[in-house]
Amino acid sequence: MNISHIEHLGIAVENLEESIKYYETVLGLKCYSREEVVDQKVKIAFFWVGSTKIELLESTSPEGPIGKYIAKKGQGIHHIAFAVENVDKALKIAKERGVRLIDNQSKKGAEGLDIGFLNPKFTFGVLTELCSK
Amino acid sequence: MNISHIEHLGIAVENLEESIKYYETVLGLKCYSREEVVDQKVKIAFFWVGSTKIELLESTSPEGPIGKYIAKKGQGIHHIAFAVENVDKALKIAKERGVRLIDNQSKKGAEGLDIGFLNPKFTFGVLTELCSK
Repeated sequence: MNISHIEHLGIAVENLEESIKYYETVLGLKCYSREEVVDQKVKIAFFWVGSTKIELLESTSPEGPIGKYIAKKGQGIHHIAFAVENVDKALKIAKERGVRLIDNQSKKGAEGLDIGFLNPKFTFGVLTELCSK
Repeated sequence: MNISHIEHLGIAVENLEESIKYYETVLGLKCYSREEVVDQKVKIAFFWVGSTKIELLESTSPEGPIGKYIAKKGQGIHHIAFAVENVDKALKIAKERGVRLIDNQSKKGAEGLDIGFLNPKFTFGVLTELCSK
């Protein structure tokens, strides 16, 4: 699978502007980019922390995955994304090793990355993304 | 505050041995150390992923913080820990900037680090630890 590092952490927030203010003025991190991913119904703010990114995720609809997550669990860390060399190969390996997949094939995610998710029922409760450039 | 990187992610798990097996055999990460922190009622397994560690946390008692967390929210990512130069200075800065603290002073955490937690009601739902060597 060849995981090199944690590419990003996705954090579900109710209010992107208020959360950005906290990450910038309290923690001293800098929002370097924003993006909307329409099919995921989400607005994203990106921060670098060392070699890992933090993605703050605000749902643009209660029907989106982040909206549903917050309704059920509240704000908080939503997923971890591991950087791999090739997502499709890594998804195949995970499946061969007994993990059920959310995405059988890679798809395009934020910042143009190839991404694919593992089913958290098979990853001890952690929604796990694999991604590559 | 001078956050340099994400020092570790704490992940609450019901069964340390089963979870270690998943992180090793599916994700290909290597558990390099284990530790029990008696006053936190927790057994920990450590993995390196790039410059960040993953700490798998199994409660040794339903009354411990991880036991209570799992009873309420289920298994999953429990906290994020940012590396800072000096925890006591960073806690003071967070307080001055309006964040309520769980720990007003640093205490000793796993691997001998100085650590202190911010109150997640003031950090948009993310249990946030600051730590330094």
